[in-house]
Amino acid sequence: MLKEQLDKIMCPRTVAVIGASAKEHTIGSELMKRLTGYKFTGKIYPVNPKGGIIEGLQAYPTVLDVPDEIDLAFIVVNAKFVLQTIDQCYEKGIKGLCIVSAGFKETGKEGAELERQMKEKCEQYGMRVVGPNCMGVVNSHPDYNLDGTFAETLPERGHIGFVSQSGALGGGILNILKDLNLGFAQFISIGNQMDINAETALEYWENEDDVKQILLYMESISNPSNFRKLASRISKKKPVLALKSGRSAAGASAASSHTGSLAGADKAANALLTQSGVIREYSLKNLFATAKVFSNCPIPKGNRVAIITNSGGPGIMATDAICEYGMQMAQISDKTRETLRSFLPSAASVKNPIDMIASAPLDHYKQTLTTVIADENVDMIMVIYLPFLGLKDIDVANAIMEIKAQHPEKPVIGVFMTKNEFFTQISDMEVNMPFFMYAEEAAEGFMRLDQQRRWIERPEGKIPCYDVDKERAERIIRTAIKDGREQLTTLESIDVLNAYGIRACKYGLATNEQEVVDLGNQIGYPVVMKMTSKTTSHKTDVGGVRVNIQSEEQLREEYRDLLAKLTEKGLIDGLEGVIIQEMVKGSREMVCGIATDPQYGPMMMFGLGGVFIEVMKDVCFRIAPLTDIDAMDMIKSVKAYKLLEGARGTKPANIEQIQETLLRLSQLVKDFSFIDELDINPLLISEKTGEGIAVDGRIKVRMKEALNTLHVECDCHCC
Amino acid sequence: MLKEQLDKIMCPRTVAVIGASAKEHTIGSELMKRLTGYKFTGKIYPVNPKGGIIEGLQAYPTVLDVPDEIDLAFIVVNAKFVLQTIDQCYEKGIKGLCIVSAGFKETGKEGAELERQMKEKCEQYGMRVVGPNCMGVVNSHPDYNLDGTFAETLPERGHIGFVSQSGALGGGILNILKDLNLGFAQFISIGNQMDINAETALEYWENEDDVKQILLYMESISNPSNFRKLASRISKKKPVLALKSGRSAAGASAASSHTGSLAGADKAANALLTQSGVIREYSLKNLFATAKVFSNCPIPKGNRVAIITNSGGPGIMATDAICEYGMQMAQISDKTRETLRSFLPSAASVKNPIDMIASAPLDHYKQTLTTVIADENVDMIMVIYLPFLGLKDIDVANAIMEIKAQHPEKPVIGVFMTKNEFFTQISDMEVNMPFFMYAEEAAEGFMRLDQQRRWIERPEGKIPCYDVDKERAERIIRTAIKDGREQLTTLESIDVLNAYGIRACKYGLATNEQEVVDLGNQIGYPVVMKMTSKTTSHKTDVGGVRVNIQSEEQLREEYRDLLAKLTEKGLIDGLEGVIIQEMVKGSREMVCGIATDPQYGPMMMFGLGGVFIEVMKDVCFRIAPLTDIDAMDMIKSVKAYKLLEGARGTKPANIEQIQETLLRLSQLVKDFSFIDELDINPLLISEKTGEGIAVDGRIKVRMKEALNTLHVECDCHCC
Repeated sequence: MLKEQLDKIMCPRTVAVIGASAKEHTIGSELMKRLTGYKFTGKIYPVNPKGGIIEGLQAYPTVLDVPDEIDLAFIVVNAKFVLQTIDQCYEKGIKGLCIVSAGFKETGKEGAELERQMKEKCEQYGMRVVGPNCMGVVNSHPDYNLDGTFAETLPERGHIGFVSQSGALGGGILNILKDLNLGFAQFISIGNQMDINAETALEYWENEDDVKQILLYMESISNPSNFRKLASRISKKKPVLALKSGRSAAGASAASSHTGSLAGADKAANALLTQSGVIREYSLKNLFATAKVFSNCPIPKGNRVAIITNSGGPGIMATDAICEYGMQMAQISDKTRETLRSFLPSAASVKNPIDMIASAPLDHYKQTLTTVIADENVDMIMVIYLPFLGLKDIDVANAIMEIKAQHPEKPVIGVFMTKNEFFTQISDMEVNMPFFMYAEEAAEGFMRLDQQRRWIERPEGKIPCYDVDKERAERIIRTAIKDGREQLTTLESIDVLNAYGIRACKYGLATNEQEVVDLGNQIGYPVVMKMTSKTTSHKTDVGGVRVNIQSEEQLREEYRDLLAKLTEKGLIDGLEGVIIQEMVKGSREMVCGIATDPQYGPMMMFGLGGVFIEVMKDVCFRIAPLTDIDAMDMIKSVKAYKLLEGARGTKPANIEQIQETLLRLSQLVKDFSFIDELDINPLLISEKTGEGIAVDGRIKVRMKEALNTLHVECDCHCC
Repeated sequence: MLKEQLDKIMCPRTVAVIGASAKEHTIGSELMKRLTGYKFTGKIYPVNPKGGIIEGLQAYPTVLDVPDEIDLAFIVVNAKFVLQTIDQCYEKGIKGLCIVSAGFKETGKEGAELERQMKEKCEQYGMRVVGPNCMGVVNSHPDYNLDGTFAETLPERGHIGFVSQSGALGGGILNILKDLNLGFAQFISIGNQMDINAETALEYWENEDDVKQILLYMESISNPSNFRKLASRISKKKPVLALKSGRSAAGASAASSHTGSLAGADKAANALLTQSGVIREYSLKNLFATAKVFSNCPIPKGNRVAIITNSGGPGIMATDAICEYGMQMAQISDKTRETLRSFLPSAASVKNPIDMIASAPLDHYKQTLTTVIADENVDMIMVIYLPFLGLKDIDVANAIMEIKAQHPEKPVIGVFMTKNEFFTQISDMEVNMPFFMYAEEAAEGFMRLDQQRRWIERPEGKIPCYDVDKERAERIIRTAIKDGREQLTTLESIDVLNAYGIRACKYGLATNEQEVVDLGNQIGYPVVMKMTSKTTSHKTDVGGVRVNIQSEEQLREEYRDLLAKLTEKGLIDGLEGVIIQEMVKGSREMVCGIATDPQYGPMMMFGLGGVFIEVMKDVCFRIAPLTDIDAMDMIKSVKAYKLLEGARGTKPANIEQIQETLLRLSQLVKDFSFIDELDINPLLISEKTGEGIAVDGRIKVRMKEALNTLHVECDCHCC
């Protein structure tokens, strides 16, 4: 269905250019020049009310006059004529539009209204639309040779699918593709993404063999959960790379919880991309460098890199980069070393990095690579070349490409610190490996290849469904919102956690000695006793907090002593009761919680808690719902994981139980989607059992949504 | 003196090439070709035993046959003839050598011995030497036109001084200079740096006006303290950029202290470069990008950046990059905004980033830059250009350079996402600003300019000299080493700290009730009492630790109770006494200490202590001795500084006192340079006073060195 629809746009047999023009430097003229110049294999029908000849083709006054069926219409007319043009297209039976014209949502209110009408019309007419306010589309496959853009240069043929949310940027990229040594299979400038967006393109390209990797430039994500569903599936089949901009602009909204204040839209975007297996790049430069690597390298079997060089300094720098990007320096086998030793001079080093020394002739490059590429301890190879008397860069490149061709399974990257001429020369050739100027670029490339390998190997993960007491949780929340409280009390919050099987610190409120003792016995010793009073806020100062109470007897004593002390000080009247609380011993304070992003929805946080939370910011976010694998990734990705493993003689934490805590929280926010913020801080790691225990908890809901969802009428008369 | 000596090498009037050759692809031939090809302004005398004509010049059998005085001799003969060649040079009265020949230290033991002899000879003869095993020297000043290398390409003229420790790398760089849009004033390939090294070059270039910035590629630093002295002075006059490689190879040595285990050679190198005002780059790519920025930009007055763009997407990406590199987005003044509004279309955005929209004609670029560059709220400007119908990149570049020329005080960087052709074109022109393809490169450039600004503005700093009880510290150390203990006891360590005026937790050992009470009274309450016993290791389990003792009376009670409990349990015999210790209340645990790097000497550490030290690694290193500014930099550069400032309602720490603690420690290791490791962990921040108090301390010395320095004979018979 989607394929059939988008094929009309991306693989058309006939196109109309409504607004085609013979006037130089207009979009209507440039677009015609690209279509004809790139030798579109189908038929092109220019449409212009004045008729005439445009790029050697007869122009028709209206699209209705075209004596042929039209698959795709480019619309390049002034915004005010677009609606009537769409009507004509409908009359003509056209199903695919690419609206290049600007003057819609991007210009303000009036334009937005026009776009809304246009959208309605196109939906009604069953048309699929690229744009408006876009740069056009490209399909470089020789069956089509479609360049429907107005970029200055004709596209390079290749196997990348590229979606750009910025029109000018897309055009800029098309112009420099050749310099970048990259080629596109298909390109869609989605513009205002009135209809077709990044997700549409992802889905369309999923089974399109000509598109071997997908690149996205995004400023926003239309439908995060749909994006996640699609991207996490498709990224297992082909690499999906994204440049998501607008990081700094996204100021975190004023939030009352820790989780909320550490969150923010970019954290959400990052979580979403990570969970979806999308490789996120932070600059166009890196995006293209990575694309170049995926264009010319297979996915490796592991992360062990061998470096072959004719110069020591760059070998050292390459080693630094390999290690810093988290790769392993391969342990060259003894056999490989012996072979290398047999032909390399004595001053050469046959340990990794393999330094053949500056005078290495072409033959040493060949023999060394042939030997090393066959070594089973080596997954990827960097070949470094620095000019030396008489040895030509292009000869070295050709020699290593010849050897590489016999080992299609191992990525090889060339680092050639030589003149631009070489790179220009290479960009005109068929290559089977990428070449860069600097070792750091190659190292980053290896890192990305390895990231993709790990993603492919990563199990799918499951979203478990635990047996929880949903009704009880609902009752507690219902009570709170009926009171007009969007913020649950600590006791309520802990109760909700308990209802969801989350290990929380046991406690209760007692107002007389019998209740105190009953609670103590029920919770089990040791316990903590804390007074609650309307009049005394500094509990500790008046002896109102008693810790480490070991027995019923001691509890009784402490309670009596408290009453006596308060009476003595004249403070007894304010006393509401005492909280008897399980005493959890542990020095490791973690945090977990939920924050809600207006666009991405609820997201989970896990990390180092206590006083360090906002100083260290050692936390990790993922969009809910979590799979078991997501939850484990979160736990392992914070630095504080070392503390959980049992650094410095502490008991290893129960990682599975912490994972389950996160998964149960995820289930909670799935069930009650109006939970706005939730903080468990600290999630104390019990020194005795290694469990993570919620010692404090707070839950905040979005009042209106909660009232609606639970069909509650609030008593507070304020909502 | 140094100038006179190095002028012989870098600014010679006459050069001899000993080992000159007419045979193609030999170094002796290539070097002659460079010298003549670059049109050396002095005289060239090829020397070859066979005589003959080389590059049109008559060759002499030996240097002694040359009928002229020689300033600089290049030596290109086989290693085994080098010694006798040096003798001949001496006889000829030559004072400057550039030994290109390889086959010395880099090849192993024999070569090292040969180099040693060579060094001895040259020192004896009063010669200054570049090399051996090097690529040669360059001075592009038109008074000299000296290209004494064998790189493939002739050097570009410019104002960079470049020192390369890797010969092949230096050659590689010379080859690609033009592509990089960079020019060198002088280049020295120091090779095995037998005599002349990076420090020599720094000092020589300090007052050399033709050298406007200094670039160093280093694998090691010969004399760190001399480097620091020179670089910190010279970097205030001109930017000094360094690429220091070998980061990963430097495995931290097995160390027993925290400070030691977190240290390592690269931490030391990093500290040294930071303290010296050297801008450290981590890749050649970044090194050259930064050099390009310094070549064409003044030092700005602040860090407020304005962005002018004709495309929204790149504007957003640029904003992201500016913020991430720690710059400020300039607040454009109202007046500027009004002016911009007067000529830009309504769809344009006149807030920073200023988006002139895609259709911006050349004139809008001109008017916008003219307006923005005059705004006092703007310190630096990024001008972004993406190709749009009919607007030529080179026209935009020329227009903005013209405006920039009228504002020499403000850095402007162009981000032109256009074809390589443009950059090739620009590299052949005189430019007054740098151009890059991507916004991130420009942002990084601004960041480096700002870093240099802050360094220039940074006060020199003083190394204070406190009034300390050095003799007492020496006595304590003497006692320990006399016992054969390289590790001081905690009590001894604390005593040494006390002697140096470092605020340490007060405590003492008592063996009877009277001593207990005396100590308690002396220290002041509250105190902690801890038993020390030969037989009981788990003090807490037997009630052997009593905290928060508030009075003499309570102390007496607790002591008696302890004795009673131990007697009861039959553990009284093992009791050695009790430690009475000041009770410091505080939740913030910092760490400070000293570690020694075999090459860089003692270095100081400061950071977050306690259980987080090795998990969070939130620590900062500086080489000793510290200036007051260094110490403050250390404190402010760790994340935990926020905790010290008083996050979450805690009392702000006494920063000056912590600074003084670091400075006193620095003085300690200056006075006792054999201190190998010192740990104060935790340095507890008192909740009462905000002071940092050493609650635990350990000092370890290098035994042999300590014995020698203090003239002690050890009693242990093991040393």
